[in-house]
Amino acid sequence: MRDLLVWRRDVRHFRRDPLPTGTLEELIELACLAPSVGLSQPWRFVIVDDETVRAGVRRAFAKCNAEALAAQQPSRSALYARLKLAGLEAAPSHLAVFADRTTEQGHRLGRLTMPEMIEYSAVTAVHTMWLAARAQGIGMGWISIIDPDTVAALLDVPPEWKFIGYFCLGYPEDQSSVPELEQEGWEERRPPAKFIIRR
Amino acid sequence: MRDLLVWRRDVRHFRRDPLPTGTLEELIELACLAPSVGLSQPWRFVIVDDETVRAGVRRAFAKCNAEALAAQQPSRSALYARLKLAGLEAAPSHLAVFADRTTEQGHRLGRLTMPEMIEYSAVTAVHTMWLAARAQGIGMGWISIIDPDTVAALLDVPPEWKFIGYFCLGYPEDQSSVPELEQEGWEERRPPAKFIIRR
Repeated sequence: MRDLLVWRRDVRHFRRDPLPTGTLEELIELACLAPSVGLSQPWRFVIVDDETVRAGVRRAFAKCNAEALAAQQPSRSALYARLKLAGLEAAPSHLAVFADRTTEQGHRLGRLTMPEMIEYSAVTAVHTMWLAARAQGIGMGWISIIDPDTVAALLDVPPEWKFIGYFCLGYPEDQSSVPELEQEGWEERRPPAKFIIRR
Repeated sequence: MRDLLVWRRDVRHFRRDPLPTGTLEELIELACLAPSVGLSQPWRFVIVDDETVRAGVRRAFAKCNAEALAAQQPSRSALYARLKLAGLEAAPSHLAVFADRTTEQGHRLGRLTMPEMIEYSAVTAVHTMWLAARAQGIGMGWISIIDPDTVAALLDVPPEWKFIGYFCLGYPEDQSSVPELEQEGWEERRPPAKFIIRR
């Protein structure tokens, strides 16, 4: 378990060879074993194969990434520009995940004080998928540098679905237990004790 | 991996015997291996040992759970009343998790279009901990039927921390691969195909 957690990485450098037929569907099936508030299973998966849609997503990412670059402090913009923050060109599989706050499944149990539990449940499904993929040698990358409304429009999903993330999946070009952002000098991880207080 | 995902359950029936010393801290250490947006590690863990604070949390849960019971459709209120939705009395370990949107760690990478990635990162840490605990035979239960502001006040945490959840941990009284809400007839899981569309 520890090995899996240490190895698990957000991947942005993918080989172009496709995942075996049915693999993405199997990973989604495992993701559906995730916990969800009130057993509401609010996750909604959109498998994106259409090349026109994919091209639209690439443009949407490029636009937001250019804006993020422009917003960097001058001292960090060169470093930011060097980072590879998506693997949209090479990754053979694309997936978008949404959460449906309007679902009646679960009869709203656990959602009165914290309606955001719906989004959190979809995130546990995403992370389940991430770990299940990694256990099979498959890499996954989470793209958040993108405008949620643009993605929803490109994918023509129901307006009540909240965008959780756009994901690239495929075999990683290389493997490392050190996050790419740490390798590149963007940020370093802090010891766990820094994040704990006691009451 | 599949076995772990199938077995992983939200636990509400705990044995009272404590976790071995250091176990909770080890689980938090594993949780800190989770992915986080921009390597921001925005998770904040509060280990709750003080009995007065714990009693306050129990009262806060009881209040919100009574309100949730009152809000049920008449046809479902008897069923709701029968559900055990927290394990706050017996569970030997209590933990609250927050997310800090104000953290400068990660230099705001990936957070411009989706600032909620901070909360989502904390959720991936929680789910990492859930799976790591389960792999060691330890159960964990997520309590969302509680007022976030009340918990934050009881725990006296910085006002900018967003409450993610309150968690009970301990050894489960029994084990099952069927969610309790399904056993009790509250809700049933749907096949994964129901949650997939293609574009």
